Amino acid sequence: MPSKIAFSPSEKLQRVRDKAPLVHNITNYVVMNSTANALLAAGASPVMAHAPEEVADMVGLASALVLNIGTLSAPWIDAMLLAGRAANAKGIPVVLDPVGCGATPFRTETTERLLGELRIAVLRGNASEVLSCTGCSGRTKGVDSTVGSLDVVEAAREIARKLGCTVAVTGKVDVVTDGAQTLLVSNGHPMLSRVTGTGCAATAIVGAFCGAGDDPVSDAASALAFFGFAGERAATSAAGPGSFWVAMLDELSRVRPSDLAVGARIERAP
Amino acid sequence: MPSKIAFSPSEKLQRVRDKAPLVHNITNYVVMNSTANALLAAGASPVMAHAPEEVADMVGLASALVLNIGTLSAPWIDAMLLAGRAANAKGIPVVLDPVGCGATPFRTETTERLLGELRIAVLRGNASEVLSCTGCSGRTKGVDSTVGSLDVVEAAREIARKLGCTVAVTGKVDVVTDGAQTLLVSNGHPMLSRVTGTGCAATAIVGAFCGAGDDPVSDAASALAFFGFAGERAATSAAGPGSFWVAMLDELSRVRPSDLAVGARIERAP
Amino acid sequence: MPSKIAFSPSEKLQRVRDKAPLVHNITNYVVMNSTANALLAAGASPVMAHAPEEVADMVGLASALVLNIGTLSAPWIDAMLLAGRAANAKGIPVVLDPVGCGATPFRTETTERLLGELRIAVLRGNASEVLSCTGCSGRTKGVDSTVGSLDVVEAAREIARKLGCTVAVTGKVDVVTDGAQTLLVSNGHPMLSRVTGTGCAATAIVGAFCGAGDDPVSDAASALAFFGFAGERAATSAAGPGSFWVAMLDELSRVRPSDLAVGARIERAP
Repeated sequence: MPSKIAFSPSEKLQRVRDKAPLVHNITNYVVMNSTANALLAAGASPVMAHAPEEVADMVGLASALVLNIGTLSAPWIDAMLLAGRAANAKGIPVVLDPVGCGATPFRTETTERLLGELRIAVLRGNASEVLSCTGCSGRTKGVDSTVGSLDVVEAAREIARKLGCTVAVTGKVDVVTDGAQTLLVSNGHPMLSRVTGTGCAATAIVGAFCGAGDDPVSDAASALAFFGFAGERAATSAAGPGSFWVAMLDELSRVRPSDLAVGARIERAP
Repeated sequence: MPSKIAFSPSEKLQRVRDKAPLVHNITNYVVMNSTANALLAAGASPVMAHAPEEVADMVGLASALVLNIGTLSAPWIDAMLLAGRAANAKGIPVVLDPVGCGATPFRTETTERLLGELRIAVLRGNASEVLSCTGCSGRTKGVDSTVGSLDVVEAAREIARKLGCTVAVTGKVDVVTDGAQTLLVSNGHPMLSRVTGTGCAATAIVGAFCGAGDDPVSDAASALAFFGFAGERAATSAAGPGSFWVAMLDELSRVRPSDLAVGARIERAP
Repeated sequence: MPSKIAFSPSEKLQRVRDKAPLVHNITNYVVMNSTANALLAAGASPVMAHAPEEVADMVGLASALVLNIGTLSAPWIDAMLLAGRAANAKGIPVVLDPVGCGATPFRTETTERLLGELRIAVLRGNASEVLSCTGCSGRTKGVDSTVGSLDVVEAAREIARKLGCTVAVTGKVDVVTDGAQTLLVSNGHPMLSRVTGTGCAATAIVGAFCGAGDDPVSDAASALAFFGFAGERAATSAAGPGSFWVAMLDELSRVRPSDLAVGARIERAP
């Protein structure tokens, strides 16, 4: 039986607004603009930098590092490793979005390399991406999931234990677990899947919450509840995916901690 | 005298919605986000990937490949050739957008190289870009056309025959021809030229229709009619280019096959 | 005591609309789309190109060159130098946006190199970026300023004299100076800081005005007044940063020279 949570998503949102954490993103070309705008709207401060000459310096200013393997190429993997090591040395959280993992060996191998060489705080993907990370079943069709996320609670726990990190599998219900504690987040709206980069933006928001917080499982779940709740509110006025994303950016800035206190739907899994 | 067409644009749109073809794009940085969103809104599934390590694998999952030479650099040409050969081997359509062809020798030579080494299904550009592809007259000013597209029906036919592919020259009236059959599409709106990347998005939608279809001339013409018709509807509520593009994404998802049955304006050229 | 200006911002906007100057941008991935759309909306013609094979050719078609060091990497510095030399040789204005200068040695050194090797017409940044360019005080937090721009009138004059170019320091009040003449622009709205890339777009608009004009100080001040005034109008209808940017693009196209004649707030500094 699901039970109540012992933390406050609204306090975590307040902390993001108060601290305005600088989130360093090494992410894909498709979503750089939308990710930066989502972070700014939510109250965080984004920076994008990938040159080997500066990634460690930029990590030195940041509160969190977000790595995203969409539109990947070899030089960017080097940058991710350099930045990730600097973040690990500094002790700031590293959040990994394995976009399209499972779709090609290059993405799967890169994900495994990043997971192997870096200490990842949160791995955030859809079911097929996360399952592909560790050689489990699940096929990725392009960058969209082909496995329902509720089927994967047990798999997520096992992967979290195996990797020693928090795993956040997003879908109709998001599963966030470190293997011991498991949270289910049921905020969100189908329109989120009609706009490119919403998963990537959610990952960046997880980075913002982790950068302002200190507990990856509850931080990540709060971030996903916040993002999903903003999506629910945005959908009420949207005529299609274009106006939905505009409203989404508006709502990421308009949702107050008190709104989230009412709107967040997070439960502890049995 | 123009005459009626023997195919149904609305059935072709329905096929895109039913099949949700995965369209692999190797395109320019400026339009990656807007192109992905246009494809998603229309009902297709976009993926962007350019690393030599994975382009052939990604083509293996795709129904169409779209190559676009904006913000070109040498490594991306290699990726386009690799991906294009894989697409040719697999037998999926390759659609080429020669952005800014004629503006610099680098773009003109790259276009000619891609046309020479790959089997292109559809070449989609404005008049000066397409005319520049083959050393004809027409000067490109940046990435905008300086030749009216209606002047180019004969030139388009000649180029199509010479290249052995379908040529789609967009402008006030779009000309789509394989040298034998020629279609004229008169959907569209002047606002489309006030937003960056609308031509690139149109090319990607041509990729989606070709990926879901089997006849490049009628597929490309249907795609352009659909795109132009969505633009007409979007313009009715737009206060400027910002709100126009938002409405455009909404309309790409809202236009139903039955709407297109009424709204498409495609004729056979005399 | 501030005094009236001796030029007409509205005539300068009219010139942009009449000439539709081609602005060649070598800029960061985050803002390529939004910058291109801002230029198009304002009435200019954007092109993005960074390949060493073509930057000089593209400069040959352009009326202004805009260099922006966000998401910088080594090959892009080479492209900026090549393009900058071609622009200097041709005699078209080069506008530099030192995004995040001061945040990392890589960005600071690159800015100094570009300033050293090229003849820059206008350097446009926030206070900490501009102060960092020349080893003055001021710390950059990511890409946001930590120094109020009004404190920097004297510093801006000194930097302008030292660099021998026009310096535009944007903030609550924008300071534009070549060391001799100093203009203060008080248009703008706080919402502009809630959207990514608005500073970069402002720089590109400066490029458009300089490309259509002949006096960097008054051209840059007019561009910033135009951009800020469009922001003021956009803010009246915005519900958040998403709808603000949409309205901003609309207003960049809707503001007429006659509107700017009334709305521009530019003064000569004492």
